[in-house]
Amino acid sequence: MYSRDIRIEFNHCDPAGIVFFARYFEILNSQVENFFRDVLDYPWEKLMFADRQGVPTVRFEIEFRNPSKLGDLLRFDLSVETLGRSSLDLTHAATGPDATTRLSARQRLVWVARDGRSMPWPDYLRAELAAHLEEQP
Amino acid sequence: MYSRDIRIEFNHCDPAGIVFFARYFEILNSQVENFFRDVLDYPWEKLMFADRQGVPTVRFEIEFRNPSKLGDLLRFDLSVETLGRSSLDLTHAATGPDATTRLSARQRLVWVARDGRSMPWPDYLRAELAAHLEEQP
Amino acid sequence: MYSRDIRIEFNHCDPAGIVFFARYFEILNSQVENFFRDVLDYPWEKLMFADRQGVPTVRFEIEFRNPSKLGDLLRFDLSVETLGRSSLDLTHAATGPDATTRLSARQRLVWVARDGRSMPWPDYLRAELAAHLEEQP
Amino acid sequence: MYSRDIRIEFNHCDPAGIVFFARYFEILNSQVENFFRDVLDYPWEKLMFADRQGVPTVRFEIEFRNPSKLGDLLRFDLSVETLGRSSLDLTHAATGPDATTRLSARQRLVWVARDGRSMPWPDYLRAELAAHLEEQP
Repeated sequence: MYSRDIRIEFNHCDPAGIVFFARYFEILNSQVENFFRDVLDYPWEKLMFADRQGVPTVRFEIEFRNPSKLGDLLRFDLSVETLGRSSLDLTHAATGPDATTRLSARQRLVWVARDGRSMPWPDYLRAELAAHLEEQP
Repeated sequence: MYSRDIRIEFNHCDPAGIVFFARYFEILNSQVENFFRDVLDYPWEKLMFADRQGVPTVRFEIEFRNPSKLGDLLRFDLSVETLGRSSLDLTHAATGPDATTRLSARQRLVWVARDGRSMPWPDYLRAELAAHLEEQP
Repeated sequence: MYSRDIRIEFNHCDPAGIVFFARYFEILNSQVENFFRDVLDYPWEKLMFADRQGVPTVRFEIEFRNPSKLGDLLRFDLSVETLGRSSLDLTHAATGPDATTRLSARQRLVWVARDGRSMPWPDYLRAELAAHLEEQP
Repeated sequence: MYSRDIRIEFNHCDPAGIVFFARYFEILNSQVENFFRDVLDYPWEKLMFADRQGVPTVRFEIEFRNPSKLGDLLRFDLSVETLGRSSLDLTHAATGPDATTRLSARQRLVWVARDGRSMPWPDYLRAELAAHLEEQP
């Protein structure tokens, strides 16, 4: 599991003083991006500009279980759930300082060439991702 | 069904020149907000500041079926699917000028008091929403 | 002068219920983009992807004179102030339904090749932009 | 001077693969917010919700001197330039790993009551801010 603490800031918050749900997707995308950078050792500037690949999100299911307020320090947890031929299912959870779950989500990414066609994961990434599967097959 | 045409602009697009999926949630939230304003005749400044209620999103399921490019003029369709005691399930679809589906989604909102507790829909909104249910019960 | 009416929506607003100033820059960029599309007949998908040029902003001066609230319908006015060899100075103003000025701004763009080097405006755009100068030379 | 290192992420970048200038204002606002939290020991959740004050930005001048790319680790520096009765002038600079200046900016904030009227800085904040003036009077 890959975890980061992220503070809820002014730019995340709506007129009710809580996180506007659309902003969570920017944070969750940042989680995936930093997982690639920190854990897989494959930063997206290499992925996108040097190797000309992409990892578009094709599906998201998310439940917003409790609101988060300005200043809350949340722990975001990312897990690798399923590794397909060219797809990847991740799960996310965010937990508040009061130990309540703020959101839980499942995200599907696909490995694509620059023209958008899905491609099998390259061996390097497949091995790295497989090593981080929550349940080893 | 409530439909609006929305142009994909520069601020929606990512380094691959297509819509960054997180930006779609701002557009879909705008769809709901304008549905309240244009169809239900209940603008959110009244809802939030005069009446001190809220309509937070508690669940989203979305599939991004085809990428959308800078300049694409998409048609966004919103339908009222299910009306609960305090919840509302909406469906969204976005279609490109080439008639391909770009995304399809289901969103659950809840009617809440300013303290975040869910409340039964007030009679006025319940009647308006019921009149827009896709399948009349 | 190029004018559009833009409604302040939920996604623009901060915990004080007024526009978060950073969101105005997305709106002002959209103004410039639509000025290129609607007035100059040069949409940015052509500019960026077909012609592989860019119009990065190199300077912005802005005054936020009065707050704007959720639901306000603002008129945004864009004027062409100065046309340089490869630069363009635009002015923006936004006015509320109460006739108060919400913001006034000056923005400098530069015409660049894809590698970021500034280039002289092509003849077609120079002629179009010159025709829209507020003060004809 | 208050400095933080911030990585340019996917959500900051535009179709040219560089930072969309509007995103910088979210980063700069975060700089100010964290300066209040880390240096002034006055987090904005206290400022806005407990004390019911605000610090709206009333003026910004910014120059984008060099583009920043996905993955760049920038150093953002914030300095307290001038302290008025109810206003505060800050300067920002962002520097890339190649030591080039990416942006320089001056921002004016005002201390306001919840109704938007400017108010003199409270003694605590005035003393803290005065202690961080770049040039001691």
